[in-house]
Order: sequence, then C-alpha cells, then structure tokens
Amino acid sequence: MRNLRLRIEYDGTDFAGFARQKGARTVQGVLESALQAALDEPITVIGASRTDAGVHARGQVVNFFTSRPIPTDRLVMVLNRRLPSDLKVLSAREVSAQFHARFSATSRVYRYTLYTGVHPSVWKIRYAWHYPRPLDCARMQAALEQILGEHDFRPFSVKLTAEQNTVRTLFSGLVVPTRDGVRIELEGSGFLRGMIRLIVGELVQVGTGKREVDALRWRLETRRQATFMAPPQGLCLMRVKY
Amino acid sequence: MRNLRLRIEYDGTDFAGFARQKGARTVQGVLESALQAALDEPITVIGASRTDAGVHARGQVVNFFTSRPIPTDRLVMVLNRRLPSDLKVLSAREVSAQFHARFSATSRVYRYTLYTGVHPSVWKIRYAWHYPRPLDCARMQAALEQILGEHDFRPFSVKLTAEQNTVRTLFSGLVVPTRDGVRIELEGSGFLRGMIRLIVGELVQVGTGKREVDALRWRLETRRQATFMAPPQGLCLMRVKY
Repeated sequence: MRNLRLRIEYDGTDFAGFARQKGARTVQGVLESALQAALDEPITVIGASRTDAGVHARGQVVNFFTSRPIPTDRLVMVLNRRLPSDLKVLSAREVSAQFHARFSATSRVYRYTLYTGVHPSVWKIRYAWHYPRPLDCARMQAALEQILGEHDFRPFSVKLTAEQNTVRTLFSGLVVPTRDGVRIELEGSGFLRGMIRLIVGELVQVGTGKREVDALRWRLETRRQATFMAPPQGLCLMRVKY
Repeated sequence: MRNLRLRIEYDGTDFAGFARQKGARTVQGVLESALQAALDEPITVIGASRTDAGVHARGQVVNFFTSRPIPTDRLVMVLNRRLPSDLKVLSAREVSAQFHARFSATSRVYRYTLYTGVHPSVWKIRYAWHYPRPLDCARMQAALEQILGEHDFRPFSVKLTAEQNTVRTLFSGLVVPTRDGVRIELEGSGFLRGMIRLIVGELVQVGTGKREVDALRWRLETRRQATFMAPPQGLCLMRVKY
C-alpha cells in the first residue's frame, strides 16, 4: 500500500467542519467521496486538524493509503476536477508508511482575521470577524505573550471529556495591525476544540480595554472558563509543520 | 420629495443580476425591499448599471425619491442592518432632483480579473476567471487600443432589439499583468449588454495567440458578432462617474 499525503485548501463557509458526520457536508466526507470515485476503492483520510464548521484552511494536510499506482501529479488533476469549487488539492506526494497527518505533525499555524471598519463589507464577511471598534494591538500582544509556552489550556476549550489531556504548547503568538483590522497569528503543538476562538474572544476584550492585560494568564491560573468565543469565519488553518 | 443617492457594493454570486425580476433574487429587488421596510413607503430605485447575474460591484450607484426626513448617516446604518451579508450600502447623500443614477452618469469603470495559476483556487473561483494558460498582456493591450474611442459596438453585445442605439465610447482600456493573472480595466460612456465579457473573451484569444492583434477592430469593421464570452464572476463594476 502507498501512503499519500495531500495539502488541501477549503473555504469553510458551506462545510459543517472537517470531520465526517452522517448527513452533513464535511471536508472529510467530500474528499473521501472524490478519492473513492477517482481510485475506485474505499478510502479513509486522516486530517492534521479537525477544523470547526465555518473555519477555513489554506494548508490543511491529510494522508491516506491506496493500492493504486496513479502518479501524484495526475491524482491532483483528477481530484480537482471532481472536487467542488470550495475544496481543492494544492499538492500530493508519496510518503513513508510511518507518516500520520495528525500524530506526525509538530505544529499547526493558524491565522485569525478581524475587520474593524465601520460599515460591514461584503468582501470580508466570509473571512473575517467584523468588529467595528478600535483595538489596542500592543495590549493584545502583551496579553498573548503571557500565555506562551506549555500550559493546561482547559479554560480555553469546549466539549471536553473529563479525562482528556488538555496540556498544549503555544510556541508563538503575534498580533499584527493591518490596513483595516487586526491579524492574530498563532503557532502551537496542537489546539483544543474552541481554543483559538476563545483566546481571540478574550484578546479582543483586552484590546478594547474591557479586560486587563493579564486576563488570559489569570484564566490559566484560576482555571476559570473563557466564554466569549470569536466567530468561526475569521479563523484559517495556514500550515501544518512536520 | 428628497432625492437620495447611495453607493453600494455586492457579491454577485448569489444574485440573478441587478434588475428586478419576479421570483428571482436580484440586487434591485433586495435593496427596494430593505428601503421599503426602513422607510415604510413604496420605493423604486434607479441603478447606474444593470449588471448581469454573477457580476460583482464595488461602487454601483443608485438613487430614489423619498418623503421621509431620515438623516443619510442613519439610513446607511438602518439599511445595512436589514440587508443580507452580500449586499451593503457604502454611503448615502442627498442630491438635487435632477440627479439620475443612470442618465446623469458620464462614465462607468469596470474591472475584469483573470487567474492563470495551474490549479484552481477556492479563494479566486468566485471573483476571477480561471484560465490556466499564459497570456501575452502586450498583445492584449495592443488589440484593446485598436477599439478605443466611439464605435458601434453591436458585434460585442447580446440580446439587443434591432432599433437600439449601439454606439458607445470606450475612453480607456488597460491590460495589467498581476502576480497570478491579468487584470483588465475598462472605462466607457456606457456598455451594452454582454459587451465587456465579449471583449474580454476576444482579448484572451489574442493573448494566447489564437487570434491576431487586430481581431477586435476587425469585428467592429466587418460587424461580425463576437461569440466567446468570458464568465461573469471575473467582472466587477468599480465606479460610476458623474
């Protein structure tokens, strides 16, 4: 069996998230159907990150096993012809049998985009959180730096089982002012369900002055659950590193 | 009665064009409904350009008459709250009774975007024509310059009545290479139905070498109908000048 690794991109707007679900249009479901039709054998894909409904990806990575000898260049073309306009394969290559898109990954890079213009914009509404108030990026950056490193991120997560391991490492975090908003770049060993959107929700409150700069660290120390969740459309999985 | 002028933007993907049609979701229909609900009186809007289904606008202009004294700033806010995410008002102001969005306009500026990357892109598919072949922009520019000025543009139009005046003036045309494709900027006194998309279709054939540089002028001279029409999603109404 060959182990093939694909880099894919999708506009998450019309997907019910990455993970396959009965009766819902998911990235995994649509991709597996296209692969099965192209390769004429049952295929199960493993994704690096299970992005939520509405979350986008510019560099999600998946792998799967196949017995077919199809060249990888040809597979990209054949798949892209079968895939819908909001899900495309960027590249494919053969990897060793040991490669696992999820467990082999050493870090994930996500970007969260905020648009702070006064009026809503039809071009940004699918890809940014419209937050029409000024945000203090320096304060947000300082708050974010206080939670870099290895921590139990349980206060920044949703829908956990009690016994799940919730320790993750946040390698880096950048809050960058843009022409019409703010971009937040996060790289971590992995992210819990809802983690980035809860961190962004808290950061925004720091940015408006509603919360203190140590608000995020305080949650980690006191284990108080964060509750203000940024909407999914601002989030994009940029890259998975191995 | 006050005459109000609005600048609006829309993502044309899910609209059946600008002009009101029974049973179809159109820009005019959705805008008139929002205005009627906001102002509580019947409203008819006049648009500067009747864009086709799938065509976008970053600076469409409309006007309408109302008896209501609502301040223009407030009207923008109230309307944007009622309007769907793919249609928004950018600004509003009161103008003289003589102002007519369509007949007072002196020119329209359109942009057509081509994406020439090898693989389809989920980010461009709604806003560009995916044409994965190299295009010679210098040839296209030369071909376009041969049809600048006042001409009977009937060969570059669709669905005309025989007696319609088909003389228009093309003030300027630019073919600009971009990082991943080509942008065509056109400014004219007005454009016939299908005119830009037929011009772009012809230009692309000049750009690949399939047709000669004088192909467009030849159509004007021989009155041979252009038939290769660029798809709507690459087209955007950028600005209307008065």
